[in-house]
Amino acid sequence: MAFSPLIDQLVDALRCLPGVGPKSAQRMAFHLLERNREGGEHLSQALAQAMQHVGRCKSCRTLTEEPVCSICSDNKRDHALMCIVETPADVLAFEQSGSYRGLYFVLMGHLSPIDGIGPAEIGVSDLLDKVKEGEVKEVILATNPTVEGEATAYYITEQVKSLGVKVSRIAHGVPLGGELEYVDVGTLAHAISGRQAVD
Amino acid sequence: MAFSPLIDQLVDALRCLPGVGPKSAQRMAFHLLERNREGGEHLSQALAQAMQHVGRCKSCRTLTEEPVCSICSDNKRDHALMCIVETPADVLAFEQSGSYRGLYFVLMGHLSPIDGIGPAEIGVSDLLDKVKEGEVKEVILATNPTVEGEATAYYITEQVKSLGVKVSRIAHGVPLGGELEYVDVGTLAHAISGRQAVD
Repeated sequence: MAFSPLIDQLVDALRCLPGVGPKSAQRMAFHLLERNREGGEHLSQALAQAMQHVGRCKSCRTLTEEPVCSICSDNKRDHALMCIVETPADVLAFEQSGSYRGLYFVLMGHLSPIDGIGPAEIGVSDLLDKVKEGEVKEVILATNPTVEGEATAYYITEQVKSLGVKVSRIAHGVPLGGELEYVDVGTLAHAISGRQAVD
Repeated sequence: MAFSPLIDQLVDALRCLPGVGPKSAQRMAFHLLERNREGGEHLSQALAQAMQHVGRCKSCRTLTEEPVCSICSDNKRDHALMCIVETPADVLAFEQSGSYRGLYFVLMGHLSPIDGIGPAEIGVSDLLDKVKEGEVKEVILATNPTVEGEATAYYITEQVKSLGVKVSRIAHGVPLGGELEYVDVGTLAHAISGRQAVD
């Protein structure tokens, strides 16, 4: 590096952001220093506050600075439905669709024995404890349609079913607006096998 | 937005970075919160320090936290050569090439009347003051080969020549490793008109 120590340090620190390599980090540092110092100071404060105060919701494990997140503490939502997702971003995606009014449970990942991520790391026992409380009538599995996501869904299905609670999986098939000829074969196979009768 | 206030604030603040839209900002925020809190805290501190302490070199206008940057204060460099560049990143590019041992003068932009950037904003009077001191024997123009960069080079050439100091422009032509058939017509025209005799 060849700038002054503080600039070098900033360029280096920016590389902790995902998808930011040396050139982008340099561009970001110069952009802030040359044109947006206020934005840089604001980002510094927002980072410090979030890193210090954001923890996990006691109930659904999502990221929040409150002990219990706004969704879990909302009495107008349907506490009999629990949708299992991998990340807080998935929660946001469902919330933006406006199609779901139940609760969530955020695994913060998926089973991945090779990375040392087992049932304990994704909070399966917390999940089963919540189901055992008896309020949840249906568990909806919305893990990603990847190998790890499917394996995670399978594992949780076995565990929850043994408690006698209904388990469902979100539908997989051709996305709306998708053209059939560009849809991958796995999705098409799912779309055929999951076909529904038209009344 | 639908996360907790501190997370929303962080996602918003990350959007001040160039090239970061709402989805990337969200991904960055979750990455730091879920997997790299230490990196986030370090970035927060690096930002705060850089935004507060980094200013301009009194001599060449580049970004530095010292009153005079390390290049300008290096007595081993050739103070008779002054290379005019648009940004501190251009300085780094030349330094990495290892091909230049003179000083720089950083315009921090280029002439752009439509954006209200005139000679005063790019520090032309400071530049001329430095040239008048008499130590500089040659001014090398290394502004970008864009319309604005060329106009800026032309303007500075006129001003510096009137002081009786030699002015040169870096060579433009086919880049090393470039294949002729993929080089744009403007570059090829430059390469032909700037051809040099082979002894």
